[in-house]
Amino acid sequence: MPVVGMAGGGQLARMTQQAAIGLGVSLRVLAGAPDESAAKAVSDARIGNDRSLDDLAAFAKGCDVVTFDHEHVPGPNIRELEAQGVPCRPGSAALAHAQDKLVMRDRLSGLDVPCPAYSHVPPSAPLAFLEAFAREHGRPLVLKATRGGYDGKGVWIVEDLDREAHELVQRLLSEGVDLMVEQHVPFTRELAALVARSPYGQGAAYPIVETVQEGGICTEVISPAHGLSKDLAAEAQSLALRVADELGVVGLLAVELFQTAGGLLVNELAMRPHNSGHWTIEGARTSQFEQHLRAVLDLPLGSTEPTAPYTVMANVLGGDDPDVYSRYIHVMAHDPGVKVHMYGKESRPGRKIGHVTVLGDDLAGLRERARHAADFLRWGPRMKEHR
Amino acid sequence: MPVVGMAGGGQLARMTQQAAIGLGVSLRVLAGAPDESAAKAVSDARIGNDRSLDDLAAFAKGCDVVTFDHEHVPGPNIRELEAQGVPCRPGSAALAHAQDKLVMRDRLSGLDVPCPAYSHVPPSAPLAFLEAFAREHGRPLVLKATRGGYDGKGVWIVEDLDREAHELVQRLLSEGVDLMVEQHVPFTRELAALVARSPYGQGAAYPIVETVQEGGICTEVISPAHGLSKDLAAEAQSLALRVADELGVVGLLAVELFQTAGGLLVNELAMRPHNSGHWTIEGARTSQFEQHLRAVLDLPLGSTEPTAPYTVMANVLGGDDPDVYSRYIHVMAHDPGVKVHMYGKESRPGRKIGHVTVLGDDLAGLRERARHAADFLRWGPRMKEHR
Repeated sequence: MPVVGMAGGGQLARMTQQAAIGLGVSLRVLAGAPDESAAKAVSDARIGNDRSLDDLAAFAKGCDVVTFDHEHVPGPNIRELEAQGVPCRPGSAALAHAQDKLVMRDRLSGLDVPCPAYSHVPPSAPLAFLEAFAREHGRPLVLKATRGGYDGKGVWIVEDLDREAHELVQRLLSEGVDLMVEQHVPFTRELAALVARSPYGQGAAYPIVETVQEGGICTEVISPAHGLSKDLAAEAQSLALRVADELGVVGLLAVELFQTAGGLLVNELAMRPHNSGHWTIEGARTSQFEQHLRAVLDLPLGSTEPTAPYTVMANVLGGDDPDVYSRYIHVMAHDPGVKVHMYGKESRPGRKIGHVTVLGDDLAGLRERARHAADFLRWGPRMKEHR
Repeated sequence: MPVVGMAGGGQLARMTQQAAIGLGVSLRVLAGAPDESAAKAVSDARIGNDRSLDDLAAFAKGCDVVTFDHEHVPGPNIRELEAQGVPCRPGSAALAHAQDKLVMRDRLSGLDVPCPAYSHVPPSAPLAFLEAFAREHGRPLVLKATRGGYDGKGVWIVEDLDREAHELVQRLLSEGVDLMVEQHVPFTRELAALVARSPYGQGAAYPIVETVQEGGICTEVISPAHGLSKDLAAEAQSLALRVADELGVVGLLAVELFQTAGGLLVNELAMRPHNSGHWTIEGARTSQFEQHLRAVLDLPLGSTEPTAPYTVMANVLGGDDPDVYSRYIHVMAHDPGVKVHMYGKESRPGRKIGHVTVLGDDLAGLRERARHAADFLRWGPRMKEHR
């Protein structure tokens, strides 16, 4: 049976291990430390720096294919692995579009995929440029680092081009951050389209979900997105499958979308298991983690059929008391049907340390159950103060 | 988060690791070799002899609770661990009933739980005793080693008390095998009742399943047992919950049952995740592996609600060609909805190397799909020759 190497030791690699055990596939992870989320769950955990070419090359020896738990492995290092004959999936050429938001925007625009208005911010006279952009596209502006952001990091909403904004832009540019600016889209809600593509070219699309964000962090995912028309759902699935195909993605592709009065716009891309797909562990016949393994191994893809009318996932964030276990017992006693997933990570305020999933047909009830479980795991009986 | 130690490195420990990852619990296994099924899947795998008190005691250090992947850890060693203060769940007193069939029969009879007629076989003049037993209860006779059997091993169906039977009995007795005899029950089918019990005393019962055996090995499990009356299903669940309670079982209890014209009879007991419960991974809200962990940790038990009208599980046995992977690709391509579970075990003829699960509402179709997948994984295109 083949060996899949996954660079990165986070919860995505950890949950991929659950799928690998079922498939009988060996998962090897490259983690930064033995106490990282995935390193605690995988027998073949190598400790090293997944940004380092030497560590990556040593890690890749004996792997049938190398894939990624995040977007932060430098593109040149992936290209060098490829030059050494290591099958990297997704490959560096596709992954560039998930690593650099400007590369992604330019490519998608070339494919006539609808995106918000955007532009690179020139390092010389950036403020005059932003003033002109704001005159054309309105305010607020969305300022983004082209590379390295996640979970709202690397994104700044700029209401006014006042002194504070000037200082922010100057500080970022002086730190060498490459900036782009986007129109702030007046969306009705956020959706995500998750698809898989294999080297053979097979594609598979999951139901379109609604994602709820708070402070740039996804807190809740509802599958399928409630009340989404069949036409828009099919359009979102087709769009994601087409992007996967045009970009040559192998593995999963998550397309974050804005639903607006004028239609769908692409927000971000990710080429790995994605937070918007955690619901698939129980809510789809094939979990996104199994699907990613099947895709990168060029196995036939699994059914994406939902297993219940609705699935709701809520992220568990760390609260101010790191002892989660007593609250976890309460949640299990309160709701024997809730599925609790803990990532083996130390609890810190605001950190994603797990998620909960509930399934059924009463969407409002499911949302209440998921929210209760996630809030109680974070705050305990003091959850009401934080609602 | 707590550490659960599981003695034994087989597929039950391997699948328990999938559940432990989700719960955020650390699973430590004691495996005989690094290439055993669970050792390949668990980061904290200790290599040792799970029959040895020294190895068990060293293994147990740092575990919050110790549990078992099989029944073969000697009772005296578990009692010694308990004397040293190690929480063993199930405890030695309960486990004795899953380790010794005569102890089990005597105890269940004392509880008025219906069992086939049985008796210990006296080592002196055993044949005269068996002749008398046959005159009273008919033939064939079921001869069993009181200890150490599994998957049909340790069980002999004796049609006639001829020379061959005499030689078998004499050989077994001379090897020191302790024997019992049971009436061969004319059953309509075999059922299994799976329940969990926590130290707190909480109980949870899964739907009653039908198990199909070939040559003493379970080949197929159908959940729920088709056409079983509500009354009989409730009776089987109550019986298993009562046995768990009376015997003080902590963790899972699987009760194998014969359905006969006269009612239900208990065949065997197991106190661990059981082959008849593999369907729960996809087919119940809480898998048996998660439930076992919750029970031994004294966590509130999870919902046993089924996730589909029917779930069918078929065991994958090794065929004569050990290269399973090419057949595995075919099975995935043929049926994107089948869930394939491989145990990371070397394929040998007749060995359980995995299982497949399908879910839906068309029972006949599900059985055909499960059988096709399991047969194809075993035999490939030559499966028709073996049907």
